[in-house]
Amino acid sequence: MLDICLLGTGGMMPVPGRYLTAMLARVDGKMLLIDCGEGTQVTMKMLGWGFKAIDVICFTHFHADHISGLPGILLTIGNAGRTEPLTLIGPSGLAWVTEGLRRIAPELPFPIKYIELTEAKGTISVGKYEISFLSVEHIVKCYAYRIDIKRRGKFDIQKATSLQVPKEIWSKLQKEEETEFEGKLYTSDMVLGQERKGIAVSYCTDTRPIDQLIPFIKGSDLFICEGMYGENEKKQKAIENKHMLFSEAARLALQGKVEKLWLTHFSPSVSEPSEFFENAHSIFPNTELGEDRKKITLFFPESV
Amino acid sequence: MLDICLLGTGGMMPVPGRYLTAMLARVDGKMLLIDCGEGTQVTMKMLGWGFKAIDVICFTHFHADHISGLPGILLTIGNAGRTEPLTLIGPSGLAWVTEGLRRIAPELPFPIKYIELTEAKGTISVGKYEISFLSVEHIVKCYAYRIDIKRRGKFDIQKATSLQVPKEIWSKLQKEEETEFEGKLYTSDMVLGQERKGIAVSYCTDTRPIDQLIPFIKGSDLFICEGMYGENEKKQKAIENKHMLFSEAARLALQGKVEKLWLTHFSPSVSEPSEFFENAHSIFPNTELGEDRKKITLFFPESV
Repeated sequence: MLDICLLGTGGMMPVPGRYLTAMLARVDGKMLLIDCGEGTQVTMKMLGWGFKAIDVICFTHFHADHISGLPGILLTIGNAGRTEPLTLIGPSGLAWVTEGLRRIAPELPFPIKYIELTEAKGTISVGKYEISFLSVEHIVKCYAYRIDIKRRGKFDIQKATSLQVPKEIWSKLQKEEETEFEGKLYTSDMVLGQERKGIAVSYCTDTRPIDQLIPFIKGSDLFICEGMYGENEKKQKAIENKHMLFSEAARLALQGKVEKLWLTHFSPSVSEPSEFFENAHSIFPNTELGEDRKKITLFFPESV
Repeated sequence: MLDICLLGTGGMMPVPGRYLTAMLARVDGKMLLIDCGEGTQVTMKMLGWGFKAIDVICFTHFHADHISGLPGILLTIGNAGRTEPLTLIGPSGLAWVTEGLRRIAPELPFPIKYIELTEAKGTISVGKYEISFLSVEHIVKCYAYRIDIKRRGKFDIQKATSLQVPKEIWSKLQKEEETEFEGKLYTSDMVLGQERKGIAVSYCTDTRPIDQLIPFIKGSDLFICEGMYGENEKKQKAIENKHMLFSEAARLALQGKVEKLWLTHFSPSVSEPSEFFENAHSIFPNTELGEDRKKITLFFPESV
C-alpha cells in the first residue's frame, strides 16, 4: 500500500491558510517528497509522519514556491537524527541551486546524493519507488513525476518445483531478488508468476497540458495536477504564464484514463476553488479539489 | 510615532501556530524588518501592512531560522511593485549568503544595497531610522539592533528672529535639514531648539546576556529579547547553546532601565511560555510574553 498526502495546495507564494503545493508519499515507512516550498516543513509537522525517513526529494523546477523550503527541511531532517544519504532529484542545476541555498544550512549529519535530470524522460528507482519523469512546458525547465509501486507476481509452486528451487529458500525468494543456496544462485522469477498491477500516482505542476502527459499519466490511481486558474476565460493568461485551467487538468485526466484527479496549485487569486469546481467536474467526474493535508491510502488491487 | 509588530515568536525551526521571530517597524509608512525566517512573509501578510514599503531588512545572523524566508519575501516585495532600492544590513558575508539564496529568486525589479557589518558596534541611518548595532555572543557572528527615531527640537521663534531667518522658510526648516532662500543657505538648527527625546526599540536575539548590552539597550521604550528557555534550571544548556533564559532577559531589561520587555524566540520545547512567565516578571515587572503579531504604537513623549 501507498500513503499519499497533499501537503499544500497553493501556487506562486505562501498565503495564510494555504501551504505551497507539495506531495508526500510513504511506503513501508520510507518517504518520498515532491517539491518543498516555504512552509512545507510546517504542514508536514502538522501531518505527523516525521522527517527522518525522507529518502528522496524530487523537484519539478526551481521557482521559489517549489524549493524555498529546502534549507529549513534539510536542517529539520538532520535534527530528526537522519544519518543515511538523502537523494535529491531535479532538473540540471540542482546541485548548484542546492549548494546556494545551503549557505544557511552548511552542516548536515547526512550526505546528499544529487540526480540531475538531463533527458526529456526516463525512470529512476530508489528503494520501492520507481520514479518516472517527463519534461513539461513551463517558463523554466520543469518535470512531471510519476511514482509506481511495483507488485511482484504470486508464488508459483509448480514453477518453483519444476525449476528445482529448494524449498528452504522459497520464502526468501518471494521477498528478495536473488539468493544463494549451497553454492548456487537462485532468482525470484524462478518462484514467482507474472508481475501484478501495482499502484501509480502522477504529479504534474507547473505546465501547459501537453500531449506527452497523456501516456505519461496513463492509468494512474491518482493524478495530482495543477489548476492554477478556475475560470475558462483565463485561458490566455494560462498560456502566457505556462499554467493550466481547471478544465485543462480535467481533460488530461480524462484522456489519461486515470482513476482520480486532485486539483492543486491554486493561484492566490483563487480564494475559493469550489466556485470553479464544475469546470473540471463536468469534464472528469472523479475530480476532487485538493486541500492542505488531504490524504489517501492506495492499495494493490485484490489478489487475482 | 513608531508602529512595532513582533511578527513571530519561535526559535530554531518554524512550528505550527508559531512563526519564527522577526520584528517589523513602521514610521511614516516606511518599514524596517529585522530577521526573516521561513514563513515571515505569511505572518506579515496576515498583518496587512503590505510589502512594497520595506526599505530595510536587518539580519542578526545567518542561522536559517533568521534568514530562510529571504528569497520568498524578496519575490513578494517585487510582486508588490517595488522598484526603489532595498537595503540589507547584516554580518559580513551578507552578500555571499544572499546571492546564494537568490539562485531561486534571480530576477527582482529593485536593486539591493548591501551593508555588511564589520565593526563591533556602530550606527547607520536609513531614512528616519537610526539603526545601531552591537556584536553579541552567539555560536556564529551575531548582532543586536537598536532603532532610534529622533525627534527634532521645538520651533524657537526668538532664535529664528535673532538669526534673521526669513519668515517665508520657517515652516520648511521645521521639516527639512536645510533650504536656500534668495541665494543664502539656512539650516534647521537656526529655527529649532534642542533635540527632544525620541523613541527607541531594541531587538536582541540570539546571544548570551553580555554586559555590553546594558548601555546598548539603555532607556529603550521597548526591549524585544530572546527567552529561549523558561526554566532557570536550563542555564547550562543556555550557556552551551549561547542563548538566554527568561530570567536573564529580565535582568538585562532591569539593568538597561528599559520601559517594557517583550520575550520572544521561544524554543520549540517551550509549548506554553506563560508557565515560566514569573521567572521574568519577578525580576522585571513590566515584562510581557511575545505573541505572533503582537503590536504596539509608540509615541513621542508629550511636548515639553
